[in-house]
Amino acid sequence: MTGKVWLVGAGPGDPDLLTVRAARLVANADVVVHDALVGDGVLALVNSRADVIDVGKRPGRGVPQELTNELLIALASQDHQVVRLKGGDPFVFGRGGEEAAALLDAGVPFEVVPGITSAVAAPAAAGVPVTHRGVSAAVTVVTGHRRSGEPDVDWQSLAKVGGTIVILMGVTERGAIAAALTAGGLPADTPVAAIRSATTVNELTLRCRLDELAGADIASPAVIVIGAVAAFDLRSGHLMEVSSTGRSR
Amino acid sequence: MTGKVWLVGAGPGDPDLLTVRAARLVANADVVVHDALVGDGVLALVNSRADVIDVGKRPGRGVPQELTNELLIALASQDHQVVRLKGGDPFVFGRGGEEAAALLDAGVPFEVVPGITSAVAAPAAAGVPVTHRGVSAAVTVVTGHRRSGEPDVDWQSLAKVGGTIVILMGVTERGAIAAALTAGGLPADTPVAAIRSATTVNELTLRCRLDELAGADIASPAVIVIGAVAAFDLRSGHLMEVSSTGRSR
Repeated sequence: MTGKVWLVGAGPGDPDLLTVRAARLVANADVVVHDALVGDGVLALVNSRADVIDVGKRPGRGVPQELTNELLIALASQDHQVVRLKGGDPFVFGRGGEEAAALLDAGVPFEVVPGITSAVAAPAAAGVPVTHRGVSAAVTVVTGHRRSGEPDVDWQSLAKVGGTIVILMGVTERGAIAAALTAGGLPADTPVAAIRSATTVNELTLRCRLDELAGADIASPAVIVIGAVAAFDLRSGHLMEVSSTGRSR
Repeated sequence: MTGKVWLVGAGPGDPDLLTVRAARLVANADVVVHDALVGDGVLALVNSRADVIDVGKRPGRGVPQELTNELLIALASQDHQVVRLKGGDPFVFGRGGEEAAALLDAGVPFEVVPGITSAVAAPAAAGVPVTHRGVSAAVTVVTGHRRSGEPDVDWQSLAKVGGTIVILMGVTERGAIAAALTAGGLPADTPVAAIRSATTVNELTLRCRLDELAGADIASPAVIVIGAVAAFDLRSGHLMEVSSTGRSR
């Protein structure tokens, strides 16, 4: 078999935040199979001779994961150089592990190319560092999306860890999540930042308190940051709401 | 002021895992100020006319953070285009938040350019996905390094969250961390993977159980992964120890 699959992280949206390797692979692929979360700017870098297949999962439609796995195997078996492009990083809620396991089982050569996860880049774009000396010494990235068969996350224990919480795919469940974190002891006035379409021209940030999260006007998909760092705005030329030690002025 | 500072993530080591923006900035900078963890392959991309300043913190020596902050401000005030290169991502235990806050206070223009964090890329290089459907729906990245004034992490609560734990700078404290996680209820046979020099020619992975971590032969710096996914080896051509659903065969 001369075909091969690259499981490639496309990063948060801005094509400048592709890795050098990803940019080269996208420019040279025969076939690109991509998710809904891959930005238009990234797709514009695909060479014009390549076939582009959208398997993005969206509410109410999309290609089932098993069929995507089979598609990748079939394309590689036809000797294609296949780039499987995923928003963010393939192994941070990208289901890259499932695709890698299927390719491994089928004996299809593959490589994983990490990408910048939105869990870090979206907060950064809003001036929020997910860790900060003296303020947060841990960051938990968690999905708010509950699938059947998914292992439970103990939100009440998570509230007690003492670090930053970053929720992906959590807009719909944000009320239940806020309630569980509050029950776990997280104060009602814990800062929250929700970032939409980070690193693109449509970027939008909303800030509130944990007790306002359930009622906050946030549209999917958004990255939700909960913790003291969510009050930070470390962007050039912006007003900073906290000092360099993280304490309010 | 025409000077500016870019706080740039250099990724896990392989220069191909720089972002497109970072590679361009490194090639065009007047001055590059870098950490100990930035790989030689990345530094080789710096243009030969640039001044290169190593402020890397290593055991027993290194430039204090406050002095690094002042250096960045001074260089930008002299109208330099300064690239501040950090291993991994600036905001994931990179102290980028402190430097951003200092630049903001001083009125120095700056931009943050995210990088691929070793917390995700090092496990990926060893075939370990930090999240996996049906196995892990959360990943906590935490520093094992205890500085004075650093907020505490509640390791016993972390043990109860139910996701993957990735520890950076935790080699020295690995015995105490394993004991705290065990006291929190994490089983003695929880899989552990420790990855050194990920994505470089010196890459080395050690696998053990949680109750073997204290005595395991791991040299700093290493990324330590604790959780069911640490038993995975999703690399092309490798034997996989678990099925695609994460259960042992």
